[in-house]
Amino acid sequence: MVEKRKPIPVDEAVRAVMNVGGNEAKKETIPLANSYGRVLAEDLVADHDVPSFDRSPYDGFAIRAEDSAGANRNRPVHFRVIGEIGAGTVFPREVNAGEAVRIMTGAQIPNGCDAVVMLELVDEDSEEDISIKRAFSSGDNISFQGEDTEKGAKLVPKGTLVDPGVVALLATFGYVEVPVAIRPRVGIIATGSELLDVHEPLEPGKIRNSNAYMMAAQVERVGGEPVLLGKLPDDLNACVEAVSNALQEVDVLITTGGASVGDYDYVPDIIERLGGNPLFNKVAMRPGSVTTVAEINGQLFFGLSGNPSACFVGFELFVRPILCRSLFFDKPHLKRTKATLGKDYPKPNPFTRFVRATLEEDEGRFVAKPGGLDKSGSVTSIAGADVLIALPGGSRGYEAGMGVDIFLLEDHKGSEWPWDNIVASYKS
Amino acid sequence: MVEKRKPIPVDEAVRAVMNVGGNEAKKETIPLANSYGRVLAEDLVADHDVPSFDRSPYDGFAIRAEDSAGANRNRPVHFRVIGEIGAGTVFPREVNAGEAVRIMTGAQIPNGCDAVVMLELVDEDSEEDISIKRAFSSGDNISFQGEDTEKGAKLVPKGTLVDPGVVALLATFGYVEVPVAIRPRVGIIATGSELLDVHEPLEPGKIRNSNAYMMAAQVERVGGEPVLLGKLPDDLNACVEAVSNALQEVDVLITTGGASVGDYDYVPDIIERLGGNPLFNKVAMRPGSVTTVAEINGQLFFGLSGNPSACFVGFELFVRPILCRSLFFDKPHLKRTKATLGKDYPKPNPFTRFVRATLEEDEGRFVAKPGGLDKSGSVTSIAGADVLIALPGGSRGYEAGMGVDIFLLEDHKGSEWPWDNIVASYKS
Repeated sequence: MVEKRKPIPVDEAVRAVMNVGGNEAKKETIPLANSYGRVLAEDLVADHDVPSFDRSPYDGFAIRAEDSAGANRNRPVHFRVIGEIGAGTVFPREVNAGEAVRIMTGAQIPNGCDAVVMLELVDEDSEEDISIKRAFSSGDNISFQGEDTEKGAKLVPKGTLVDPGVVALLATFGYVEVPVAIRPRVGIIATGSELLDVHEPLEPGKIRNSNAYMMAAQVERVGGEPVLLGKLPDDLNACVEAVSNALQEVDVLITTGGASVGDYDYVPDIIERLGGNPLFNKVAMRPGSVTTVAEINGQLFFGLSGNPSACFVGFELFVRPILCRSLFFDKPHLKRTKATLGKDYPKPNPFTRFVRATLEEDEGRFVAKPGGLDKSGSVTSIAGADVLIALPGGSRGYEAGMGVDIFLLEDHKGSEWPWDNIVASYKS
Repeated sequence: MVEKRKPIPVDEAVRAVMNVGGNEAKKETIPLANSYGRVLAEDLVADHDVPSFDRSPYDGFAIRAEDSAGANRNRPVHFRVIGEIGAGTVFPREVNAGEAVRIMTGAQIPNGCDAVVMLELVDEDSEEDISIKRAFSSGDNISFQGEDTEKGAKLVPKGTLVDPGVVALLATFGYVEVPVAIRPRVGIIATGSELLDVHEPLEPGKIRNSNAYMMAAQVERVGGEPVLLGKLPDDLNACVEAVSNALQEVDVLITTGGASVGDYDYVPDIIERLGGNPLFNKVAMRPGSVTTVAEINGQLFFGLSGNPSACFVGFELFVRPILCRSLFFDKPHLKRTKATLGKDYPKPNPFTRFVRATLEEDEGRFVAKPGGLDKSGSVTSIAGADVLIALPGGSRGYEAGMGVDIFLLEDHKGSEWPWDNIVASYKS
């Protein structure tokens, strides 16, 4: 006789996983040039004002604004050019009445000057004589010290993904080494005697192992470090040893396949033999209902379905937030937002369904279109999926044009807790 | 006297860059495990049906549907269990009338059977005797050969970014090695005597070199390979040699800084000395008006502004599409869509302005909020920027709630040609 499993709701399952301790974020420092795509492990703080001195935003001439008073088209005011100053140098003396200094973009405003006349507005009568045809006010065309950022300002909080703009800030503030979150190591083991390796030719009844590679990419997308650990052996004792060894090597461990309700599933036995605490073994959702998660000596062990779509969804719902938490992200879950359903989805289902879909923007509105074959065994519907559409269980299907909740797969901003009131939008 | 430059419109500038030949996409093959985030250089084609055999999507019992005819709650129909079949094996004999085979998820349907009864619907009266209480039809609960994908189907076109779902397909179809676009090598040289290296302490009048690192990250975001080539020397001859050497090493070359209208700018001289053909040296936009692009012996040379925001925008508008084209992307430009302006932008400007902004979704609608200090010299407004808002030049500012065109920075889908009719949405 086989035990019939009792499904628990999605939100309860996610909460159970998140309630397991451990997997705190840890810090390392890496060179600035390697920091793109990593996650800041400390707040990024300005170590100086930006600009750090009053500077010219343009090429032109630095003057004392008061000297330009009364200048107009009919009565230009002349200045004597006493020198020039390029970016990176400091003009050596005070500028006096009627004097101007040729100044380059980014150069420091000479002492005595309080305005810059853009090159385009100047008549260069000779190398030493310029004239202007309008008056300037004190402060015109000057980038003031600290106007962009003041020293000590917290510019980017811990837990921020390093994008090109963050890299620019890190460079500006002298971060030769950048404190980032250590990438959590995620072990991936495939199970199932039906699995062929990618290089093997097809055989009757067998399929190639696609889930392990797929999940390695999912781990990379979140920012973790995948560790492909091959396949589990056929013998229970050997399995127990393999899992036990794997847990020493990685932060969290995932198996895919085998965690079905069938007689051949070693996963429950492995968990028991290692003294683990199963959190659940069935979730009220499709695909991925046959998902087992356990805590083994403080580490998380995920037994995901062998069906590609089920495995994919199980990863995004249960594994991803754990990885995000250990990367200092304060919103560890898939970002939830709303979209218009782009085509009919007639199949009713008693369980909440997560449908792989592409996302299009139409005049600033999201439209989500279910893609490919929507079965848990389907592998084609995952490629190019931008979102999961959450379709609450019920006795009716859904029609194009309805409002739906979606979860963004390529996003890094995340949601703090997206699992409340998933159904609300459908009842209207 | 300094030459006053004549600005050309943004669309003309982009077109001029795209019209330069060279930079065709090239192919290499890499191991499947390294393929995430790369771009397919060939169409991905199914080398077999998926599933490659009729299989069971559930754990249960395979039967001949006709044998279940008439079964109901009051009159269950019994079957004799003649064996079991796990995934990856093939049942050795034909199944006859009244017989059932215990079958695991993913296993091949035994010959003779044409339906699967899910485990939950079976009463296991003994190990060899089961009964069911409803009738099944031929084909019930069978995943048919080829129902997901037929052999020979083109599943993913060349020029697709490899995401986790594409990885799954590559594995399924035996791509041990994956044909991907060679990452274009992008040389980055900083110019300007005001530049300090990141590790150097600040000095009066100087700033740290942030643009080179920022652009390296921009190159990585698109999928190119940045090559940081340090700073240009102060001497023109040495500059010419450095640029000439750099062009041998990389596919495209970018300098940042120096390309101002000032006397110290070597960029025009370098282009001339190397026999280059300048495409333009000023663009009617802010920031980044002072942008020079030239073709030097068939290679593209970008002289971007030294101002961080100007440099950032110049890269995204002019360099990015060239890199995307050499990565097989058929929509090489920034993806353009629409959003609601999230706060007032009172500053009028004669030129089209590209404003760094964050993007939020509000009930499935995009809201774009300009961030930080909006000056070309600003470095803080780039961090966390999701989009560039395009604000056409004019005599008025813009108000929160107006419709605006935006360009997505973190997107990989792109636009084919986003530069027509940029203004349309504002006139309504």
